[in-house]
Amino acid sequence: MKVVKFGGSSLASGEQLEKVFDIVVSDPERKVVVVSAPGKRYPEDIKVTDLLIECAKKCLVNEEPKKHFDALIQRYAAIAAELALPAEIISEISDDLTTRLNADKSNPERFIDLLKASGEDNNAKLVAAFFCKKGLEAAYVNPKEAGLFVTAEPGNAQVLPEAYTELHKLRERSEILVFPGFFGYSKEGDVYTFSRSGSDITGAILANALKADLYENFTDVDAVFSVNPSIIDRPKEIKELTFREMRELSYAGFSVLHDEALVPAFRAGIPVHIKNTNNPQAHGTRIVAERDNTNGPVIGIASDEGFCSIYVSKYLMNREIGFGRKLLSILEDFGLSYEHTPSGIDDLSVILRENQLDAEKEKKIIHRIKTELQADEVIFEHSLALIMVVGEGMRHNIGTMARASKALAKANVNIEMINQGSSEVSMMFGVKEVDEIRAVKAIYEEFFAAVPV
Amino acid sequence: MKVVKFGGSSLASGEQLEKVFDIVVSDPERKVVVVSAPGKRYPEDIKVTDLLIECAKKCLVNEEPKKHFDALIQRYAAIAAELALPAEIISEISDDLTTRLNADKSNPERFIDLLKASGEDNNAKLVAAFFCKKGLEAAYVNPKEAGLFVTAEPGNAQVLPEAYTELHKLRERSEILVFPGFFGYSKEGDVYTFSRSGSDITGAILANALKADLYENFTDVDAVFSVNPSIIDRPKEIKELTFREMRELSYAGFSVLHDEALVPAFRAGIPVHIKNTNNPQAHGTRIVAERDNTNGPVIGIASDEGFCSIYVSKYLMNREIGFGRKLLSILEDFGLSYEHTPSGIDDLSVILRENQLDAEKEKKIIHRIKTELQADEVIFEHSLALIMVVGEGMRHNIGTMARASKALAKANVNIEMINQGSSEVSMMFGVKEVDEIRAVKAIYEEFFAAVPV
Repeated sequence: MKVVKFGGSSLASGEQLEKVFDIVVSDPERKVVVVSAPGKRYPEDIKVTDLLIECAKKCLVNEEPKKHFDALIQRYAAIAAELALPAEIISEISDDLTTRLNADKSNPERFIDLLKASGEDNNAKLVAAFFCKKGLEAAYVNPKEAGLFVTAEPGNAQVLPEAYTELHKLRERSEILVFPGFFGYSKEGDVYTFSRSGSDITGAILANALKADLYENFTDVDAVFSVNPSIIDRPKEIKELTFREMRELSYAGFSVLHDEALVPAFRAGIPVHIKNTNNPQAHGTRIVAERDNTNGPVIGIASDEGFCSIYVSKYLMNREIGFGRKLLSILEDFGLSYEHTPSGIDDLSVILRENQLDAEKEKKIIHRIKTELQADEVIFEHSLALIMVVGEGMRHNIGTMARASKALAKANVNIEMINQGSSEVSMMFGVKEVDEIRAVKAIYEEFFAAVPV
Repeated sequence: MKVVKFGGSSLASGEQLEKVFDIVVSDPERKVVVVSAPGKRYPEDIKVTDLLIECAKKCLVNEEPKKHFDALIQRYAAIAAELALPAEIISEISDDLTTRLNADKSNPERFIDLLKASGEDNNAKLVAAFFCKKGLEAAYVNPKEAGLFVTAEPGNAQVLPEAYTELHKLRERSEILVFPGFFGYSKEGDVYTFSRSGSDITGAILANALKADLYENFTDVDAVFSVNPSIIDRPKEIKELTFREMRELSYAGFSVLHDEALVPAFRAGIPVHIKNTNNPQAHGTRIVAERDNTNGPVIGIASDEGFCSIYVSKYLMNREIGFGRKLLSILEDFGLSYEHTPSGIDDLSVILRENQLDAEKEKKIIHRIKTELQADEVIFEHSLALIMVVGEGMRHNIGTMARASKALAKANVNIEMINQGSSEVSMMFGVKEVDEIRAVKAIYEEFFAAVPV
């Protein structure tokens, strides 16, 4: 049995819904369909979710949301018209939206969640109606009735353990189930949405609860690329990667899907298949627990800029028990999360995202480290990029570092930092931001291009 | 003005003292001579300090220390006889030792310190007597009178700030001053010794206090080697290295001198010159604040074994503020000091010396990390070696990592870990202990040998 999730662009129009229908019926294993709200039809289009947020904000300042309300109904109506669906579905959606707009606004965040969630919820009803009209035995599933219980955290709901037991019962249903993504219900019966990519989360939860054999995630790309296509023109596609590889890659720049969303599938060992609604014949990318290691040590390269480092030196630092821990405590006091801590004998650097900092904070941090830890030197360095080179194949492949560092040297890139050894499937290079693209190109050439020697 | 320190082997016999005398008089800048206790004359010989410790222990269990007492006096007497010194010096030393043996034993550690310190103290008197007999205007300096005040920590005394002011007054003296190394006096007037290589510490304190131009440290090697000579036969000698380079090298296996001992000289910016008493013509090794960077990126390679790593993985670890700090806190609770913490996205490894651990402790640590941090995996890996590749020249030398990692790959060494980027003058490789010697040889060949391509 497969859980199939479709993203917003796959559901943006009647034409897209026809593709979705064809995909669902082409494989009898596709029993549960998780849907997003209608996305963009063309680059300047507005997503239904964004319209809903605007609409909710108007209501909260007591403005008339009629314009937004009409625009929303118009989006559903356009799809319904394209697919010649009966008028009832639109009046049902309209009634639902009206009820939500009149709901309790004493908790503004909860009200926004209630509105936002309607995008997926009403779209699921519309998709189910469409499937039925096409003669499929299909049904909309109400997440409340199905038992998708979550914590009462607006915009960041967490699934509750009992939800898995409740949702498992959906296996007894014989129809194709159309399940709205993005939200669940608190024990008190209120709607709360997940964090970004919330429909991916719903799909992963269902795949786990229903013990699916596969979680198919339909989006609008043929596959995950081995490197950012804005750096390398038409890079190699990744056919299969492990969860670990995806995590390492997602860290810096890989945004095909929000990796945290896959946790429930990952925990249950269910493979995820990323496919293209617009080109379902394409192989796509499978994310698996383990893979055969046949195609070289490196599967992908990710990079991201906007990092800085705090360099702290103190003579005889390495004899001081607790120095590193105290340094991290100070950063924690400022609410900073850090990425890496390369260390020498008498020095320690902390790499972190620089958007967490400003000049004022930096001054305070330097002061505290100097006074509390009696550090000799505390220096901020800005504008660093991190490059992750990832692949299960490098686990015991002698010489991968030599190849990567030689490629960087040939491209005249100075390596500011190397962090390698904890994860066996990645090596990380820190370089200056100005060197980032040159560095990524050099590593890609080394591992992916058939370079004549 | 120069402070000159002589180690135990340079003072083990009358023949050695003649060399010391020649060295001192050959340069009128050599005004302060710091002496150790007489060391070994031949490999099976017993150092005076070791005899003193044995002697103190006998006294503490109320045994008759006569045998040790006689052996001690015999050592000094042999030197005095060789140099035809007057008998008074030996009776003076004998009286001093008798007084110490009868001292208060209520604090055993303090009593041991009092005995241990006599080795340097009496040797300084003997050396001063010898210098005077040779017609030199020389004088023994009593550290108590000179004001070398220290904390009351047996075996680990720390110099007190006021000592520098007091000792500075020695500049007014015109004679060659012979100063005993290894100990000072508490404000209460009790003797306390420094930690190991304590005479080096005394020399560095005096160099600082007296604003010396140079601190000469005479030992029994021609120079510091670029790599451990038990791994590479007759390796290149280091003519000049910076304090930073020395610190990085001393970390793992370089034991020509105890680097912490040099802190007072380092803080005052006074260069240290390591020379050979038995071959004073040899260039030796200068340790300086900065050096001209002319001879390649790497100046030395050090390695040490006996490390282990604790690998901790947890899915989505990098989103948890405080994870690293909490992990280090747990290790701190066990009194463990750690060396490095390479990190991936969802994992973190801590490298530490494995002699701090046993099976019981490891079990407890794994348990605490698993329960308190909800880690997915906690794994100890043993028998790791760390290799430090050090050189100011690698600061902005593109390609050093490529050369080093390629050399390791060619030698079929798997790199378990790389830590590079905090210190600009070193890169660290973690390898399996079985690969250590092969790895060091490969890196030495790459950077030091003129290898035909």
